[in-house]
Amino acid sequence: MTTDVPQTAAGESRETEGREMHALVERLYPLCRSITGDGLRRTLEIVSGEIPLEISEVPTGTEVLDWTVPREWNIRDAYVKDASGDRVIDFAESNLHVVGYSVPVSATMTLDELRGHLHTLPDQPDLIPYRTSYYAETWGFCLRENTLAAMGPGPYEVKIDSTLADGHLTYGEHVVPGRSTDEVIISCHVCHPSLANDNLAGVAVATRLARRLAESDPHYTYRFVFAPGTIGAITWLARNRERVDRVKHGLVLACAGDSGSLTYKRSRRADAEIDRAVRHVLRSSGREHTVVDFSPYGYDERQYCSPGFNLPVGSLTRTPYAGYPEYHTSGDNPDFVSPEAMADTLETCWEVTRVLEGNRRYLNLSPYGEPQLGRRGLYGSLGGRSDTKQTQMAMLWVLNLSDGEHTLLDIAEQSNLPFATVAEAAQALRGAGLLKE
Amino acid sequence: MTTDVPQTAAGESRETEGREMHALVERLYPLCRSITGDGLRRTLEIVSGEIPLEISEVPTGTEVLDWTVPREWNIRDAYVKDASGDRVIDFAESNLHVVGYSVPVSATMTLDELRGHLHTLPDQPDLIPYRTSYYAETWGFCLRENTLAAMGPGPYEVKIDSTLADGHLTYGEHVVPGRSTDEVIISCHVCHPSLANDNLAGVAVATRLARRLAESDPHYTYRFVFAPGTIGAITWLARNRERVDRVKHGLVLACAGDSGSLTYKRSRRADAEIDRAVRHVLRSSGREHTVVDFSPYGYDERQYCSPGFNLPVGSLTRTPYAGYPEYHTSGDNPDFVSPEAMADTLETCWEVTRVLEGNRRYLNLSPYGEPQLGRRGLYGSLGGRSDTKQTQMAMLWVLNLSDGEHTLLDIAEQSNLPFATVAEAAQALRGAGLLKE
Amino acid sequence: MTTDVPQTAAGESRETEGREMHALVERLYPLCRSITGDGLRRTLEIVSGEIPLEISEVPTGTEVLDWTVPREWNIRDAYVKDASGDRVIDFAESNLHVVGYSVPVSATMTLDELRGHLHTLPDQPDLIPYRTSYYAETWGFCLRENTLAAMGPGPYEVKIDSTLADGHLTYGEHVVPGRSTDEVIISCHVCHPSLANDNLAGVAVATRLARRLAESDPHYTYRFVFAPGTIGAITWLARNRERVDRVKHGLVLACAGDSGSLTYKRSRRADAEIDRAVRHVLRSSGREHTVVDFSPYGYDERQYCSPGFNLPVGSLTRTPYAGYPEYHTSGDNPDFVSPEAMADTLETCWEVTRVLEGNRRYLNLSPYGEPQLGRRGLYGSLGGRSDTKQTQMAMLWVLNLSDGEHTLLDIAEQSNLPFATVAEAAQALRGAGLLKE
Repeated sequence: MTTDVPQTAAGESRETEGREMHALVERLYPLCRSITGDGLRRTLEIVSGEIPLEISEVPTGTEVLDWTVPREWNIRDAYVKDASGDRVIDFAESNLHVVGYSVPVSATMTLDELRGHLHTLPDQPDLIPYRTSYYAETWGFCLRENTLAAMGPGPYEVKIDSTLADGHLTYGEHVVPGRSTDEVIISCHVCHPSLANDNLAGVAVATRLARRLAESDPHYTYRFVFAPGTIGAITWLARNRERVDRVKHGLVLACAGDSGSLTYKRSRRADAEIDRAVRHVLRSSGREHTVVDFSPYGYDERQYCSPGFNLPVGSLTRTPYAGYPEYHTSGDNPDFVSPEAMADTLETCWEVTRVLEGNRRYLNLSPYGEPQLGRRGLYGSLGGRSDTKQTQMAMLWVLNLSDGEHTLLDIAEQSNLPFATVAEAAQALRGAGLLKE
Repeated sequence: MTTDVPQTAAGESRETEGREMHALVERLYPLCRSITGDGLRRTLEIVSGEIPLEISEVPTGTEVLDWTVPREWNIRDAYVKDASGDRVIDFAESNLHVVGYSVPVSATMTLDELRGHLHTLPDQPDLIPYRTSYYAETWGFCLRENTLAAMGPGPYEVKIDSTLADGHLTYGEHVVPGRSTDEVIISCHVCHPSLANDNLAGVAVATRLARRLAESDPHYTYRFVFAPGTIGAITWLARNRERVDRVKHGLVLACAGDSGSLTYKRSRRADAEIDRAVRHVLRSSGREHTVVDFSPYGYDERQYCSPGFNLPVGSLTRTPYAGYPEYHTSGDNPDFVSPEAMADTLETCWEVTRVLEGNRRYLNLSPYGEPQLGRRGLYGSLGGRSDTKQTQMAMLWVLNLSDGEHTLLDIAEQSNLPFATVAEAAQALRGAGLLKE
Repeated sequence: MTTDVPQTAAGESRETEGREMHALVERLYPLCRSITGDGLRRTLEIVSGEIPLEISEVPTGTEVLDWTVPREWNIRDAYVKDASGDRVIDFAESNLHVVGYSVPVSATMTLDELRGHLHTLPDQPDLIPYRTSYYAETWGFCLRENTLAAMGPGPYEVKIDSTLADGHLTYGEHVVPGRSTDEVIISCHVCHPSLANDNLAGVAVATRLARRLAESDPHYTYRFVFAPGTIGAITWLARNRERVDRVKHGLVLACAGDSGSLTYKRSRRADAEIDRAVRHVLRSSGREHTVVDFSPYGYDERQYCSPGFNLPVGSLTRTPYAGYPEYHTSGDNPDFVSPEAMADTLETCWEVTRVLEGNRRYLNLSPYGEPQLGRRGLYGSLGGRSDTKQTQMAMLWVLNLSDGEHTLLDIAEQSNLPFATVAEAAQALRGAGLLKE
């Protein structure tokens, strides 16, 4: 598919976009995010430097659908010190070392006493797992199995300097206004601490997609939602319940930067326009890819596709949820994601928006027999171009199927031609007065 | 699929059930059954010893749909004696030796004269074929090709001591009453003489299925029909024409004991609930199996699925109709069927009834976003069990698809989870007030 | 599929038909056809000798749908002579040597000046290509690459003795009247000069199909249209616009004589009765074959299936459009097509008409249970024939599916039985009073 990438004022290329997205991942990586708290706030602040965000702060205790906004969690330091005062486990080294939402603790205990609060990955002894306990009050440390193996019987000084108190849940939105109030939402979870692919890469791709769209005079209004997983999406839905019918298409963007091929998970509707658009882009691009049916597990498509909302929102990832060994471990660091993979994800998202933006249903105004293209300069008129034959085939397909029933995306799918070629053919035919909308 | 097998008062296990079914096959095997007559009556009498039967006797000449109940056939003895008085062919050795519904004969004839009345299987020279001629008056003997080859030119004394006279067609019914008058019918043909798989095994499985159901407080009323093939099913349909709309699901059970894998033949409707239930049970059990489309040939599904009735009745067999070399020969003897195979068929039937009984359409009462399972003790609450993860997935699926459109069977199929798991999840969610029927 | 081929008065066999069709191809081959002109007229005159044609002459300038009938083109001679007066390129040797619709030219020019008017096939250096320029005024010669390679720098005497002037577009029709005014159209393009498979073979097959149909007392009226490609079909459609709704089924017949297997291209409707009939014939015949979806490129199905008409017209070819190396070259000569291949195409067309003619929707008058076939002499009544079992299965299928919803073609497809067997079974059942139409 040929695409028309707007060049920014700075003239940045796709390669530049890739590098910048990776730089953003690296900048966001050290912050200790959670579903609430200052790490999340600081993350949204940095994203605001890329694309302006409208920030919402929702107080603890607010009822949101079936849920309640929890207390806000913040953490300053945490460690397990051995008898010689060395930090055997140190929050400053990696924020994954502390179980998310751990309550404060300050105690001295033996390894045996401590063991019930330690989490390791015996099969991946060099990696720190990522664990949270949002709704059951507890505390814990995550560490390398190899570290645990080397720990003596203790005693250890155990400290988690955290607070769990009334506060707020924070989320951010960026809107690219379109000519229509119909919306496309792009939703990224921003609640994970130092995990690069899950989901800083998705956040980075979203920022560049927003920038491209801003320069494209779009038909749709594009809303980017950066919110903590589950509770954030639920909060957003609760606060936008009366206006979600504006959402005509949507994508949950996650795991956007690993080296695997793209995976699209269909919306609950299964054949919504977004589902067909993404499938078409993936197929016609020749990219290796996978399309899977909706299932009520994964990222925030779970909420958007709950039966009461049933929004046409699919999920685009590279390697999907829990599908790579580094998933939810310290192995998911900035080296795990690449500028090239993020650029490829971005390009795919962009092409999907090209389909959504360009999809129309036309009516052939000369439907009896084929109209004579030659006398209108449409036949062979593009002689010097390598895609002439394909464009002429596209014109015949558009004429044949523009009966008021088929959209350009239908035609692209039925003809096995790229959407851009079909849209270009339709444009030429419309220019010649052979089609009306 | 986990199933909840009721233990009888006697505490009999599946193994016991298998042994008992095989013992019943052995007991019924020697009787000379036909579509009418005392062999059929005696068979139903023995079955009555397992599960009580209501016996119907329909007089010769009764018009039943497009057919007429034929004269009753009974046979006492039959033989072909050689010059030295030895019985070369002897009904007492195997009732297959006489063509079913043979008229009486008492004559002396040479082999050449006799030959037109002799039936063998040249390709299976050690087996006696099974032949009948219900509606064209004739007589004949079936014998091993090897026996025929050794027969001299005769003369032979030929005797068939049978009667073909006005009488009755007999069939039996057993009803397991349910809370609803909606019925599930299980239909077995009982007209074949000494053939074990076709259909004593089916009869035996039906008796044990009835016993299990009797202890299960079923929703549906289960009606077991033991009738001669074709004319028996037609007679039953003729006499129940006004009430067949009570039949919501049905299975024709045949060839239930051979060593082959299970085959399900869909009802004429193709996607009736019974069709989907059996397919689901076979798939989710991991059993090797085959599902084939309806065809108007085979057993009494031909009658139940005739276009005027078009009942949702499929057919469950192991190796299907005419699919094994021993089919309709003396090779289909009690050694050809096994306790294990009958127990497996029984288990499958039972699981199918579990799906029919448990299939419901629920409505998610908290359809906007996912309800918070954790606060209701539903998330991780089953921690110690190995199927926890599957049960939690099942809860998410049930919540997501319980929109008033999908049944639990739909959800099991879409989620690729066993029905029992889905039903258990629905039960838990209903207990938590998250679902209503 | 067994078929009932009418034997003509002359008693001609299929082999004779094949030979005669090939003789017709050879006779038509030398004529210089185009979309207008005397070669086209002479072609239709010769076809008239096989089956009477009604000839239409449509004046230049007539508006036909979106097109205008062009000027008439005729050519008497053309050549390129070298200095010694030898014809290096000679129209008399092959009419492919001149670009169709070339305007007159008479000049002396060097090879370099001439080169822009010369067309060769560098990859097939021994073949003359076929080129036309109907709607852009120009002239040119087509020649073997090997001829061009041997040509010196010139000068050459260049002559095309053609006229492009007001005249007529000619097409012919042959009608086999049926008992109904509903029509089946068989359409063949007749505008190509010396190309045998494309489409003299199609023309030849059509003549024999017409002859067979004339002796078959058909239900449908069969209309054979022999018209130039595109503009001819458009002209026919324009002049028959008010009556095209009589067209219930149709086939565009082309490339009917090469050695490849048959290809059927579906109508735009995709599942019209003609689509299902051809597919059934191809499948049940056991012929190797291909069925492809409609696309708006190829032969005159493009016009019949334009969205305004959307007629149920498919296209039957052997190797399809542009699918063989000899396509549109001098390699497509009478040796390229065979009597056997044309006979096979003819047989297929004939069998398709058997399905169209015989397809009915019956109602089983005894739909409750199976009717007793034996007492009506329908069961085993055909004992001596090898197809007895298949016919009895067909009777059961017809009875089971004749519920007012299924046609005999539906039943043939669902039962996987040949249509002829199903139709024969229906005939027998109807004779016994078991079916009504």
